[in-house]
Amino acid sequence: MNTLSVYNPVKIHFGTGLIAETGKIAKKYSDSALIVTGKSSMQKTGTLGRLLKTLQDAGINPTVYDKITPNPTIEQIDEAAGIAREKRIGLVIGLGGGSPLDSSKAIAVAAKGDIPVWNYLKTPAKEALPVITIVSTAGTGSEVNRYSVMTNPETAEKPGFGYECMYPKEAIIDPEIMLSMPPYVTATTGFDVFVHVFEAFTGKARNAFSSAYCMQAFYLLKDNLIKSYGEPDNIEARGNMALASALAGLAIDISGVGIIHAIEHPVSGNYPDIAHGAGLAALTVESMKYNLKACKRDFMLIAHHFGIKRAGKSDDEYAGALIEKTGEILAALNLNIGLKDLGVEKEKLAKIAGEAFTTMGFAVQNNPETAGEKEVLRLLEASY
Amino acid sequence: MNTLSVYNPVKIHFGTGLIAETGKIAKKYSDSALIVTGKSSMQKTGTLGRLLKTLQDAGINPTVYDKITPNPTIEQIDEAAGIAREKRIGLVIGLGGGSPLDSSKAIAVAAKGDIPVWNYLKTPAKEALPVITIVSTAGTGSEVNRYSVMTNPETAEKPGFGYECMYPKEAIIDPEIMLSMPPYVTATTGFDVFVHVFEAFTGKARNAFSSAYCMQAFYLLKDNLIKSYGEPDNIEARGNMALASALAGLAIDISGVGIIHAIEHPVSGNYPDIAHGAGLAALTVESMKYNLKACKRDFMLIAHHFGIKRAGKSDDEYAGALIEKTGEILAALNLNIGLKDLGVEKEKLAKIAGEAFTTMGFAVQNNPETAGEKEVLRLLEASY
Repeated sequence: MNTLSVYNPVKIHFGTGLIAETGKIAKKYSDSALIVTGKSSMQKTGTLGRLLKTLQDAGINPTVYDKITPNPTIEQIDEAAGIAREKRIGLVIGLGGGSPLDSSKAIAVAAKGDIPVWNYLKTPAKEALPVITIVSTAGTGSEVNRYSVMTNPETAEKPGFGYECMYPKEAIIDPEIMLSMPPYVTATTGFDVFVHVFEAFTGKARNAFSSAYCMQAFYLLKDNLIKSYGEPDNIEARGNMALASALAGLAIDISGVGIIHAIEHPVSGNYPDIAHGAGLAALTVESMKYNLKACKRDFMLIAHHFGIKRAGKSDDEYAGALIEKTGEILAALNLNIGLKDLGVEKEKLAKIAGEAFTTMGFAVQNNPETAGEKEVLRLLEASY
Repeated sequence: MNTLSVYNPVKIHFGTGLIAETGKIAKKYSDSALIVTGKSSMQKTGTLGRLLKTLQDAGINPTVYDKITPNPTIEQIDEAAGIAREKRIGLVIGLGGGSPLDSSKAIAVAAKGDIPVWNYLKTPAKEALPVITIVSTAGTGSEVNRYSVMTNPETAEKPGFGYECMYPKEAIIDPEIMLSMPPYVTATTGFDVFVHVFEAFTGKARNAFSSAYCMQAFYLLKDNLIKSYGEPDNIEARGNMALASALAGLAIDISGVGIIHAIEHPVSGNYPDIAHGAGLAALTVESMKYNLKACKRDFMLIAHHFGIKRAGKSDDEYAGALIEKTGEILAALNLNIGLKDLGVEKEKLAKIAGEAFTTMGFAVQNNPETAGEKEVLRLLEASY
């Protein structure tokens, strides 16, 4: 049996209206907080205003950094870290989807040191400011794990990194915030959860703990992924998707992602306007076909969890039925798309294939089926 | 949807031979360690010797406290805490089954303060010495959670308590150590895992996170509980039971136990020679019958996880089949026993029923079916 280590010290709070408790929670860590968020949605929905109120009520002095874009850049992270250092801020609060949450952890590391955040890809970070995450999508999983993904616009590289000091101290998961997610965001972030669970469950690094999270997440996804898209005001479906997202975030914290994420990162690294979940949607069916042989029994087990009837199906047919089901889910989410639909240029595919190995090599390694650059290029072409 | 909070900061390490790494792990915390263990089994099997060697190799000065009995007493805990204080020891290492592990956490709390450990039932503890757990049974679950159970011999009370500062820093789960468990210990501790999972899965405080651990633990129990008893040298079965025990420990850390544990604690509190798992064995079938109506769908789901065929069974029959299956498991483990077989006197039953409420009231509250003292007494009589 393989040796394993698991560790996740994040305090997870889940409940409708919980954002109003942030001040009380944050006060334990500091009297000043840097709020890291995007340009518009948290402002428009009033969520940022509610956060500012609870912090001020608790006597915490907030500074807002609201320049985080989708696929956040190292310039944004270094700029925000500079502000935190200069103002001697004691706590970072990430508010929003994957981009601000990932950034909040990178900013917390960079603020403690005096080197550009990009250098932490090679220099392990030992300390970081405390981080609280308030997640607005379901989602990224970033709210409960140590990982941060950042983009270097000069090279179009989009690597992920994560050290022990980068675990958020507390994660606030309030499904009420998620009611205002636009349909496209619900679909793409929801499908991201599906891919997290799928890759964590089938990856080489999986173990009993990551599988536990995955089984429960599959169970929640089955009934709530399409429902949360079709019934945006259904708070229970939103809540269940938020839980599935957190479970998936815990699972990938243990056992990582696979080839779908490995290829998607350079896709949206080169095309920063592509939503991560949309890139995943374009790549998933072909990647599943590629992995089918290496993890047939896992596919069968997932098919079972998704309520696909076995009937008279052979093992191969039953495993294959999961891929068909995935196609149906994508169709129901209006995400039955190829890379071409997302504006990816055919002549970029070879560059993207190479970058899957240079920036996401660990995810390729973790994939159940071995893959070289040639196979990844073929996958990209088939997903075009 | 209910509000929930989950948090478990224990670093869990699992692998054969991992005990040899303890010195390296412990060195991060202190140069001196109090080893808390029982009188004989860790000595006889050579496990204590191996632990002393890895600590000494790492330059850690070990002190051994080896007077912990099954159902450890507050005198033992206070005595060991006094030694830790006097020698200014910086780390407590629990080595063994549930009794030394529970005690190590209580000692870590008592060593930091200057009041008897019993007082911490009412006075919340804010700090404790760091604790490393090395578990020799599968098991207690104590290796990965904050709980400690102690017995007051004067009153025969056996309450549990647990504060945030009592989480072990690291848990070392080495299935090799478990190969030497005698059959009766394998059976009783293994059945304890079953009851942990059963009560955490059906309890009122359950949530998506505890259910995740339970589902995976059921899956491991199904194939390994009886096998680890019948094939004591099967390291894979031992390892899987060790993982199930840890998953169950995480589950009860979130959602607690129920009426079976609530009643068992005063049983072995009054009869300290009764193994906890044997007490549970005597009480489980009748308690399941008592809860059947309140959690029929859960019983059906567990039946499904245990591979019980639905065939033509009605819902009631399918749920009931889980109780039959539990009886079969008990028979296979040679634990098809009543309280009388364990030496419990009939005239003590009323006292025990009362103590279930005074020392384990939270567990009665958590039970799916409401129960008063009259119902608990009836359950005790039926389990006699």
